[in-house]
Amino acid sequence: MALPKLHNFPEEHLTKEQVSALEDSARRARVTALTMVTAAKSGHPGGAFSSMEMFMTVYGVADLTPENCSGINRDYVVVSHGHTSAGVYAALSEWGFIDRDEVMAHFRNCGSAFQGHIEREVPGIDWGTGNLGQGLSAGAGFAIAQRANGHKGRVYVLMGDGGQTKGQIAEARRTAVKEGLTGLVALIDWNDIQLSGKRLDIMPCNIKALWEADGWEAVEVDGHSFTALYDALKAAGTHGKPTVLLCKTIMGKNGGIMEGVADYHGKPPAVEAYNDIVKGLGEDPAVLTKAQERRKTPPTYKGRKIGYPPAPVIETGTPFDYEGAKVMDNRGAFGKALADVGKLNYKKEGRTPIVVFDCDLAPSVMTGAFRKECPDNYIQSGIQEHNVATMSGTASIAGVVSLWAEFGVFGIDEVYNQQRLNDINLAGNKTVLTHVGLDVGEDGKTHQCIDYVGLLNNTFGWKLVVPVDPNQTDRATRWMLKTPGDICMAVGRSKIDGLKEFAGSYEFEYGKAVKLRTGKNGSIFALGYTAQIALKAAEIADVSVYAVSCPLAPDMDALKEAAKAGPIVTLEDHNVNTGMGAVMILEAARQGIALPKVKTLGVNHYGASGTSDQVRAEMGLTPDKIAEAFKE
Amino acid sequence: MALPKLHNFPEEHLTKEQVSALEDSARRARVTALTMVTAAKSGHPGGAFSSMEMFMTVYGVADLTPENCSGINRDYVVVSHGHTSAGVYAALSEWGFIDRDEVMAHFRNCGSAFQGHIEREVPGIDWGTGNLGQGLSAGAGFAIAQRANGHKGRVYVLMGDGGQTKGQIAEARRTAVKEGLTGLVALIDWNDIQLSGKRLDIMPCNIKALWEADGWEAVEVDGHSFTALYDALKAAGTHGKPTVLLCKTIMGKNGGIMEGVADYHGKPPAVEAYNDIVKGLGEDPAVLTKAQERRKTPPTYKGRKIGYPPAPVIETGTPFDYEGAKVMDNRGAFGKALADVGKLNYKKEGRTPIVVFDCDLAPSVMTGAFRKECPDNYIQSGIQEHNVATMSGTASIAGVVSLWAEFGVFGIDEVYNQQRLNDINLAGNKTVLTHVGLDVGEDGKTHQCIDYVGLLNNTFGWKLVVPVDPNQTDRATRWMLKTPGDICMAVGRSKIDGLKEFAGSYEFEYGKAVKLRTGKNGSIFALGYTAQIALKAAEIADVSVYAVSCPLAPDMDALKEAAKAGPIVTLEDHNVNTGMGAVMILEAARQGIALPKVKTLGVNHYGASGTSDQVRAEMGLTPDKIAEAFKE
Repeated sequence: MALPKLHNFPEEHLTKEQVSALEDSARRARVTALTMVTAAKSGHPGGAFSSMEMFMTVYGVADLTPENCSGINRDYVVVSHGHTSAGVYAALSEWGFIDRDEVMAHFRNCGSAFQGHIEREVPGIDWGTGNLGQGLSAGAGFAIAQRANGHKGRVYVLMGDGGQTKGQIAEARRTAVKEGLTGLVALIDWNDIQLSGKRLDIMPCNIKALWEADGWEAVEVDGHSFTALYDALKAAGTHGKPTVLLCKTIMGKNGGIMEGVADYHGKPPAVEAYNDIVKGLGEDPAVLTKAQERRKTPPTYKGRKIGYPPAPVIETGTPFDYEGAKVMDNRGAFGKALADVGKLNYKKEGRTPIVVFDCDLAPSVMTGAFRKECPDNYIQSGIQEHNVATMSGTASIAGVVSLWAEFGVFGIDEVYNQQRLNDINLAGNKTVLTHVGLDVGEDGKTHQCIDYVGLLNNTFGWKLVVPVDPNQTDRATRWMLKTPGDICMAVGRSKIDGLKEFAGSYEFEYGKAVKLRTGKNGSIFALGYTAQIALKAAEIADVSVYAVSCPLAPDMDALKEAAKAGPIVTLEDHNVNTGMGAVMILEAARQGIALPKVKTLGVNHYGASGTSDQVRAEMGLTPDKIAEAFKE
Repeated sequence: MALPKLHNFPEEHLTKEQVSALEDSARRARVTALTMVTAAKSGHPGGAFSSMEMFMTVYGVADLTPENCSGINRDYVVVSHGHTSAGVYAALSEWGFIDRDEVMAHFRNCGSAFQGHIEREVPGIDWGTGNLGQGLSAGAGFAIAQRANGHKGRVYVLMGDGGQTKGQIAEARRTAVKEGLTGLVALIDWNDIQLSGKRLDIMPCNIKALWEADGWEAVEVDGHSFTALYDALKAAGTHGKPTVLLCKTIMGKNGGIMEGVADYHGKPPAVEAYNDIVKGLGEDPAVLTKAQERRKTPPTYKGRKIGYPPAPVIETGTPFDYEGAKVMDNRGAFGKALADVGKLNYKKEGRTPIVVFDCDLAPSVMTGAFRKECPDNYIQSGIQEHNVATMSGTASIAGVVSLWAEFGVFGIDEVYNQQRLNDINLAGNKTVLTHVGLDVGEDGKTHQCIDYVGLLNNTFGWKLVVPVDPNQTDRATRWMLKTPGDICMAVGRSKIDGLKEFAGSYEFEYGKAVKLRTGKNGSIFALGYTAQIALKAAEIADVSVYAVSCPLAPDMDALKEAAKAGPIVTLEDHNVNTGMGAVMILEAARQGIALPKVKTLGVNHYGASGTSDQVRAEMGLTPDKIAEAFKE
């Protein structure tokens, strides 16, 4: 029986024949899912079975097909409980996204697209998940991008019930309501069982009351009834609120001995049990033998190719020049460049929208001017950084330039895992960290972000730019906005000098150190604004100064040159164990570059609270002390 | 007028005289706070003024005094909105914890204890905060420790209203209700203004409904009335639920032009405005001049000395030996040792309680045996990792051994900032990361924790142990439980060999590499269980093998020895850019140790999904490939 075409709800209600076809399909999909986990000897069958009708219905009604799933103006589907991958893949195979035999054979097999938790390489998967709590934020990000692009689509987010306790979900709920994202539809697989037992034994959580308290329309639905799911999904969003469907389900539904048993949350059944369940579902258990046989040869299907979103269509305008001593703070130069580019492109036909996220810090992170120029593309999200980190990620793969400006400790320390998942998902969002290093002096040690290099160095994709002065900040901002990939820019709070080397016709080039001074007695490699301190030290010690603004892409030509010219000091307003100096030294060792004596200067304990100058002095990062390092 | 003694609520209600004394004190405290921020030219007066009666009352009624504040069996006070430090310090000076003139002069001055956000060095401050959302979790951790120690005390948590949107608060609320922490009392400074404007414009949040939905007793109180605050605090917890006081207040209350103005959330007034406000509060503005004068000389008061909690009083029993091939997984060895030590000490007179936290993963992280032995000290907290990371931190400074076992990506990636704040606070908690590295193969790239060394290397205090085999795991577990400080242990999932080098009389020594094999053609330094792979490679290449289990404390003697003996390969199931190899190479460069050619092997891209062996092979981490590295 062929599956009916249900995209965008062509029917008032499902017909009997349609329900019958869907049920037949769900029955087969359960066999698919169970065969996957049994052949792979690992996986999560319980939730795959309980969510099956939800998966089948959502992928049926969504404007998301094998043909349009890699484009942008369409519906999005986020499955937050990514461990139910077997169920998701099974439903996708029913709807023609992927091949059933291939996924049954190569689920969780090295080299296949079918990872243990869902990933974007599989067509129909819009976001790689499994770290619970992030899915609704992912959906909100997609919905915001749809709105910015003028596309009236829907975003479906499927979740488990156990993960409803994650705080980030509440943050996403509030943003969805504030932004009026009525096209955002959440579905909760409410089976009351989680990995280690019954939900109410593990951590009680008043699911319905919490969604309602945050302003959502909460509707209870039989999560195994296609009729009920179809009707509820069709009606979603018609009350002027985002809607959540509380789908009452049974863990392991139609899975024989697995039904209602927590143990099968994360474990395949034994082979005899497998046989019984599959027979109960009306299929020949030989399907497993076939899958096991096929698994002996390597997977042929690698999934679709996922890359960063393409370069946006925007104009980046003409850089501003800043001249003189203490002329501007880097955060200010960023804010001005952002507003300038924003204005140039705002609501212009054919341009990629630029969306800026804020967490109650616009006056400090300097996004106020952008808000004024581009009010509809400025998203005030309150003190909810986890939510924003994820939203910023998904928005960026849905047709907008997505930028979040935030204090360093909140934009990376607090949300490291969200930014890691943005990296894995090749999101291409832009994060601007302000108030980094000891330059947020008075706020004290809990607010000094001294680890942004070290944190992003753990990822494989993030680029990081730490500008030296306002001129370079301006140019790097414009470069960042039009460049694909996840890019972080880290800027300080204090007013600093505008350097002529980065003004006028200077163009920012990622990975290139800029030699600011040539001296006789050695070299300083200085990160970002500390190059300005290094220049003063260099006057005393008569050494060269290389200004580094891309600590994760060390300029090895510059280092080789310096290595021949005497001792080297690295200088950074960052943890000295994990920053620019550490990256350079590691790369030199790998390349077999013999380094002279190297002294690494930076933050070697938690900072004091005082003016930036005071705090740096306490840390030994004054021109005098830096110059002294060459005497040793 | 002397302040009344109010500890533990000696009065039915406050008398008129008592209220009058408190009001007089609050008036003076406002002058104190305003003088602080004006002398420091930075700080947050608005919230300091709106929370003033809350601070004064809580520090009045709490069983927390200058005399007992560094002990453990007492009440605890957590101020989550740590940016209101000026108000907190002012109240503490009224209650005799600190000297008024000193704090007015040296607030946010380098070298003083009075950081911009509150820190534990100031007597009366139980937790350094300011990163919003963590305070209630901190309080829950203290309350759990009190309970484990049989102390029927109270924990007061003060919060702002803007930060109510942080998801972690909801997690803490649920834990408090599930654990029946009726001694936990929350107070919200509900002034409806936050940094960049009105609360309802920034992010609406139905505060009362959310606390009630999570099962708290929510009581509205006039936050500027001592009478109302005293009565409400006294009644808290008497309905069998934790209680939150929704304290209606006015931002900048009694601060003249600052009243109700968002701009003064984070900015001191100009000097004329200062004068007017202070005169309005009945004091001579000359107090500012005096403070400014005193500020010219360095601060004399450094605060109390804060260190890690002392070594617990526990017995650690006799280590278990594991012999043979694939005899045990390290997580299993950890679980057995933990349960053994738990049983030895459970409810024994005079012993320090051992409390274990779980986030719905006991069957995977192997804390089930401990739960069986020590049911009352096992805290099931559901999928709420941010909350648990903070609770585990505060519990550890309140008289218990506090241990949290968790999957790597959730125990450190997801909660990096909470663990960073545990470090800043010198918490001394123990985190056991299971399923680290590619050893969680099938779960795929979102679940492979390949950055735990790199993340903890950003902190200054965390120790990290990555055991080589089940024998070392057992011994390191017992060592960890009795050793002061924040300690992380990272273990894999697969069964591995028990090595004789770590059995019998072997004692774990932090920072010492163990030479497992001597060869002719060079050396492998291998992290944790990869030493077992290295041994196979070493047979092929005839090289030495050093097993490293403390990547953050490189054994430089071993490295010097190896440096003389030929090429070096570093091997780790970790991001190759930020792991053990990077730490060793940096330290060698600093010490001027000339290294031979070094090849760093490890994880250099996100992993595949498959068996651990498959995934390691795809990453090039097989004995053959490792041996080949010596040919180059």
